[in-house]
Amino acid sequence: MVRVEMLAVGKELLIGRTLNTNAHWIGKRLAKMGTMLKEITTVDDDLDEIGAALKQAIGRSPDFLVVVGGLGPTPDDMTLKGVAGALGARLRRSPDALTLIREHYAKRGLTNIELTPARLKMAKLPGGARPLLNEEGTAPGVKIVTGRTTVFCLPGVPVEMRGIFRRSVEPEVRAKLGRMHRKYVTMKLEGVLESALAPIILRELGRHPGAYIKSHPRGIREGVSRIELDMAVVSEDRNRAESEGEEIAREMARAVKDSGGKVVAARGLKEGRA
Amino acid sequence: MVRVEMLAVGKELLIGRTLNTNAHWIGKRLAKMGTMLKEITTVDDDLDEIGAALKQAIGRSPDFLVVVGGLGPTPDDMTLKGVAGALGARLRRSPDALTLIREHYAKRGLTNIELTPARLKMAKLPGGARPLLNEEGTAPGVKIVTGRTTVFCLPGVPVEMRGIFRRSVEPEVRAKLGRMHRKYVTMKLEGVLESALAPIILRELGRHPGAYIKSHPRGIREGVSRIELDMAVVSEDRNRAESEGEEIAREMARAVKDSGGKVVAARGLKEGRA
Repeated sequence: MVRVEMLAVGKELLIGRTLNTNAHWIGKRLAKMGTMLKEITTVDDDLDEIGAALKQAIGRSPDFLVVVGGLGPTPDDMTLKGVAGALGARLRRSPDALTLIREHYAKRGLTNIELTPARLKMAKLPGGARPLLNEEGTAPGVKIVTGRTTVFCLPGVPVEMRGIFRRSVEPEVRAKLGRMHRKYVTMKLEGVLESALAPIILRELGRHPGAYIKSHPRGIREGVSRIELDMAVVSEDRNRAESEGEEIAREMARAVKDSGGKVVAARGLKEGRA
Repeated sequence: MVRVEMLAVGKELLIGRTLNTNAHWIGKRLAKMGTMLKEITTVDDDLDEIGAALKQAIGRSPDFLVVVGGLGPTPDDMTLKGVAGALGARLRRSPDALTLIREHYAKRGLTNIELTPARLKMAKLPGGARPLLNEEGTAPGVKIVTGRTTVFCLPGVPVEMRGIFRRSVEPEVRAKLGRMHRKYVTMKLEGVLESALAPIILRELGRHPGAYIKSHPRGIREGVSRIELDMAVVSEDRNRAESEGEEIAREMARAVKDSGGKVVAARGLKEGRA
C-alpha cells in the first residue's frame, strides 16, 4: 500500500470561511486509483505551525505528502519557507520557476509586468526543489524529495491545484502503486437500526478481510431509521474486486432484509439492484 | 489565546465520500466567539492512526481537543478505544452513559430493546470520562481531562455533533476565553492582481499588528482579476474591534482604488460600503 498524506495550509479552512473541497477532491481521485489519503492535517498560515506539521508528517514516512495552499505572493503565503525550514534547506531563486512565471504573465499579455518582490517570491524554492508547470495560475507547484517521501506543494486555488495534481502528482502515485481496481457499492437502507447492522458488518468483515464496509446513519424520519451503507474491495485483479464486491453487497442486502429492513436504492452493482 | 484543535475520525472524510462540514461548522462557531480552530487532523478508522494522532495533538497541549466521529455501535467506531489507549486508561461500562442510552431508546418508544454488545459498546468510556447528553442520537458525547487539555468526543452525525457542541463544549470554551468581539469585513475586488495587493497588505499588517488580512484569488474572467479580501480584528473591547476593523477596510479600499482596482461589494461594514 502506498501511503499518501495531505497538509492543507490556510486560515480560511480553520475559521469556517472555506470548505476543504481540495481534500475531498484529492481523496476521491486517490480512492478511485485504489489507494487513499491516509491523513489530512490542516494548519494556519503560521511558520511555526507549518514547520511542526511538516516535520510530523514527514516523520510518518509517507510515500507522498501533498501540501496545498500558501504558494502565492501575499505575506500569509509562507508554505515554501516552512518547507525549507523543516528540511533544513534554504530558499533560493529558481531560474526555472522564474521562467514559468514570466511565461504565465506573457500568455496573459503582461509582457512588461514589473517583477516586484511579491512576484519574485513565487520563484523562490527550497534548495533541491523542482518547479511544476501551473497552466491555470501564476505560482508554480513544487516537488522536493526527502528521504523516502516525495513532497508536492500545490497552490490552494482549486483549478490550479487540480491541474498540477493531474499532470504531476497522479503519474508518480500511479507508477508507485501499480494498476489497482476498486469495486465500490453504496446502498440506501431503511428500517434497520445501525446498532442492529453492527454484528452483520462484523461477520461480513470476518469473511472478507481487507474489504471496507461502513454504515452512515442518516437519521430517523417518521419513525423509520435510514442508513447509507458503503462497501469497497480493492485488488490488483479487476475480476476479484468485482466479484467480491458484488458478493458482499448481496450478502449485506440479504442480512438487512432478514432483520426486517429494506434496500431502497443501490449504486455500483452490475445488476443495478441488490 | 485559547488553543482549540480538532481530530476528525472517519474514512469517509479521506476518500472523498463526505465533505468535512463538521470542521467548517466548528471553525465558524469558534471564530465568531473570537478564537479559532488552530489545527485539524483527519484520520482513518484505525486504532493505531487514531492513537498516534491523539498523542501528537495532546502533545501540543491545546486547551481543548474536539474529537469528532467514531462513537457509534459499528466495528469501525473505535474512537473511545483509541482515546483510552492514548491516555493509558481502560474502557469500562459507565452507568451514567448506559442510563442516557436507555433513556434515548425509551424516548423513541423502544423500552424493551435488547442491550446487545453493539449497543452496550456505546456505554463503554475511558476511565475518568464523563458522558454528555446527546439529545439527537444514541451515542453519548464524552468529556475527559488530561493534563491541561479537555478532550471532548462527539459523534460524527452533524445534528448530534452540533447539539452536544452547543450544550457542552461552547460554555467551557467561553468560560476560558472570556468575552471577545470580532469585527469581520469581506470585500469583493476587481481589476487588481493579487501580487499587486501583496505589498499593500504587508503595509496594513504593519500598521495593525494582530489583525487578519487575507486575499483569496477567484480567477481572471474576461481579462479582469477578481479577488475576495477578508479582514478581521478580535478584541476584548467591542469598540476597538469595530473601529479598527472599519479603519483597515477603509484603508484597503482606498489602496485598491489607487492601484486601479475597484471594490464591487463589501459585507460587515457599518456604512455598508467601503
